[in-house]
Amino acid sequence: MGAIPADFAGDGDVLTIGGRRVDALVAEAGSTPLFVYDLDLIARRIARFRAAMPAAVKLHYAMKANPYPELLEYIAKRVDGLDVASGREMLAALRAGGKGATISIAGPGKRSGELSAAIEAGVTINVESEGEAQRAIAIGEQLGLRPRLAVRVNPDFEIRGSGMRMGGGAKPFGVDAERVPDLVRRIIESGAQWRGFHIYVGSQALSAEALIDAQRATIELAGSLAKAIGASPPLVNLGGGFGIPYFAGEQPLDVEQVATALAAALEGRDAMLRNSEFAIELGRWLVGECGVYLTTIVDRKLSHGKIFLVTDGGMHHQLAASGNFGQVVRRNYPVAIATRWSEPASEEASIVGCLCTPLDRLADDVMIPTAAVGDLVAVFMAGAYGLTASPQAFLDQQPALEMAVGGG
Amino acid sequence: MGAIPADFAGDGDVLTIGGRRVDALVAEAGSTPLFVYDLDLIARRIARFRAAMPAAVKLHYAMKANPYPELLEYIAKRVDGLDVASGREMLAALRAGGKGATISIAGPGKRSGELSAAIEAGVTINVESEGEAQRAIAIGEQLGLRPRLAVRVNPDFEIRGSGMRMGGGAKPFGVDAERVPDLVRRIIESGAQWRGFHIYVGSQALSAEALIDAQRATIELAGSLAKAIGASPPLVNLGGGFGIPYFAGEQPLDVEQVATALAAALEGRDAMLRNSEFAIELGRWLVGECGVYLTTIVDRKLSHGKIFLVTDGGMHHQLAASGNFGQVVRRNYPVAIATRWSEPASEEASIVGCLCTPLDRLADDVMIPTAAVGDLVAVFMAGAYGLTASPQAFLDQQPALEMAVGGG
Repeated sequence: MGAIPADFAGDGDVLTIGGRRVDALVAEAGSTPLFVYDLDLIARRIARFRAAMPAAVKLHYAMKANPYPELLEYIAKRVDGLDVASGREMLAALRAGGKGATISIAGPGKRSGELSAAIEAGVTINVESEGEAQRAIAIGEQLGLRPRLAVRVNPDFEIRGSGMRMGGGAKPFGVDAERVPDLVRRIIESGAQWRGFHIYVGSQALSAEALIDAQRATIELAGSLAKAIGASPPLVNLGGGFGIPYFAGEQPLDVEQVATALAAALEGRDAMLRNSEFAIELGRWLVGECGVYLTTIVDRKLSHGKIFLVTDGGMHHQLAASGNFGQVVRRNYPVAIATRWSEPASEEASIVGCLCTPLDRLADDVMIPTAAVGDLVAVFMAGAYGLTASPQAFLDQQPALEMAVGGG
Repeated sequence: MGAIPADFAGDGDVLTIGGRRVDALVAEAGSTPLFVYDLDLIARRIARFRAAMPAAVKLHYAMKANPYPELLEYIAKRVDGLDVASGREMLAALRAGGKGATISIAGPGKRSGELSAAIEAGVTINVESEGEAQRAIAIGEQLGLRPRLAVRVNPDFEIRGSGMRMGGGAKPFGVDAERVPDLVRRIIESGAQWRGFHIYVGSQALSAEALIDAQRATIELAGSLAKAIGASPPLVNLGGGFGIPYFAGEQPLDVEQVATALAAALEGRDAMLRNSEFAIELGRWLVGECGVYLTTIVDRKLSHGKIFLVTDGGMHHQLAASGNFGQVVRRNYPVAIATRWSEPASEEASIVGCLCTPLDRLADDVMIPTAAVGDLVAVFMAGAYGLTASPQAFLDQQPALEMAVGGG
């Protein structure tokens, strides 16, 4: 299995999160399954980013990673912008204290109602096509408001080894780079506020070198687009892509190395970008490791010599951990018997969810302490793309609870 | 792409479902995305099953396939039992008119509260382990009620070519066949009502021969277990596994061939099973083809020569169609431009969802009529494992609506 993030410790035999024992957290919440998010871990990630990065680089939160309201409010106060992916996320971002001018909305299928709500709230729309730009401009005219429009660019490159490819070749996202100058000129001519570029080329990268190359190429592309347009982008959103190590053998991203190279790349940027702001948009890297999914073992059983620990949770809350969210080969997230934290691993067992489907696996053949009915299982790396990225209604099981700790 | 079920037709240029134009259905519902379920198609599937199968074989509905209340009520009146996979599904089955004695609950991770609710409602519990049987018996004693307990058997075989393997080898489901006789004897000795066996060996099989072999082996196993126990099972649930053709080149299951072979296998059954009832538990085969997922095209865009139609729906409602629900290789479900039903295919395009992730694909490189913003897209085969098996909260997009037609 993957390595448990070093931020976690135990109080005797029990895992703690934010200094509190998980059995006490479950008692406070009322039941399992329970997601616990440690806000202090997020603060540490933000501080690490700020310490490493040039001051000119703004930090945005991609709230699709985790929109839990208390967590979102906590982050909104500490970052420079919120990037949302739907009209309803935009409303949640505004409720969490985000200001229109620091929010941007992306997504290839924005409805007219979402465009008009964004224009009314002064939110920047990352337009994904010429047609969408046209619709946004027309809606702005109807409303008598100047839309804030950035152009999402589909570049000709992507992050090498990225977990998900968001750019390069034919893509539903953004506008092919060669058509961007014409579109930006039309946006400027329309009287809309042109806010700059959104260039997102990949996600879940653990290689600093790959990210450095992608960021350098992104800055070069932004510079050459600006020259072709003959205008400077107010903001260049460099995308995100900072990965976290889920699986055995993976190493954490060297963010400081990325930051040093980014500072150098920005030093050498085209004169057209001299007064531009830059932003990095992070979701998973900020919140992924802060979350732990806690479930209770409801059965311990043997089948053909193999031990199965059956929990009251599963893929309906943690689809990615079950291996069914974009993965080709299922691998084990880090897990632990949270109520036998200090016991040595003593048996090989498989941890499964309560759903009546063979897809519902939380950990295959892992070496763990001998666990019994009633023990708590912790699945780590559950802070990003967890509950909201899972089929919660499947088989109509007990809904998961969520709580935040720390942040005081 | 796969073949559109022959049940569907058009009214001029517009797809109809249950004889009604989809544009009218969307207007009635209020918006897209919209799931429409044609109850008459379900009635036809039930009638086909009844006509083919020996009268002794009962038909159960596996409600996890689709728990939409109106559909569930419709089916509950027309089948012999409802098989549920959680305590909350059990409550929904009772609300839909199911009677406790004809409901059974399966699932490897039943909580104590679910066991006691089932015992109180007179629902049959398919016990999945010795430990669970013990807990159910203890709860029955506390309640002063006789639990109805069937034993789910993990057999040593599975359906060849099954879409999902539910039996054979070490599994979290059921009790290994060789331990079943001991467990049943203990159940009988405890004073609980022993209801028989639940033997579910696979799903989504399109090969009649594979199903015939599996059913024959299941009946033999039930007979030899009954002999070993020295008691006859009141009911043998033969499982389900009837598949439907999602993808290009797949052929529908020959249910009549399965039925004929099943009748012969039952004729030759062990004397210990002479007075046993038999049931087949179907979900996908009953409801999969009755459902159509309707979305609206919100953008039409070109990227590097490739046409993308972006819809207001996506993987958050149709995870399986996006290829992220147990599939290793993504293939296209049958799709159509529902508002250009009679137009010939004139271009190759990809249909994507509105989510900001490259996973959100509804159809890759399909030949379809030239479609525009505002056209409706129909994704067929959306009646089973659709909305409830999808991450509905992901990116907080517009929720899907559901409606039933027909059944009058």
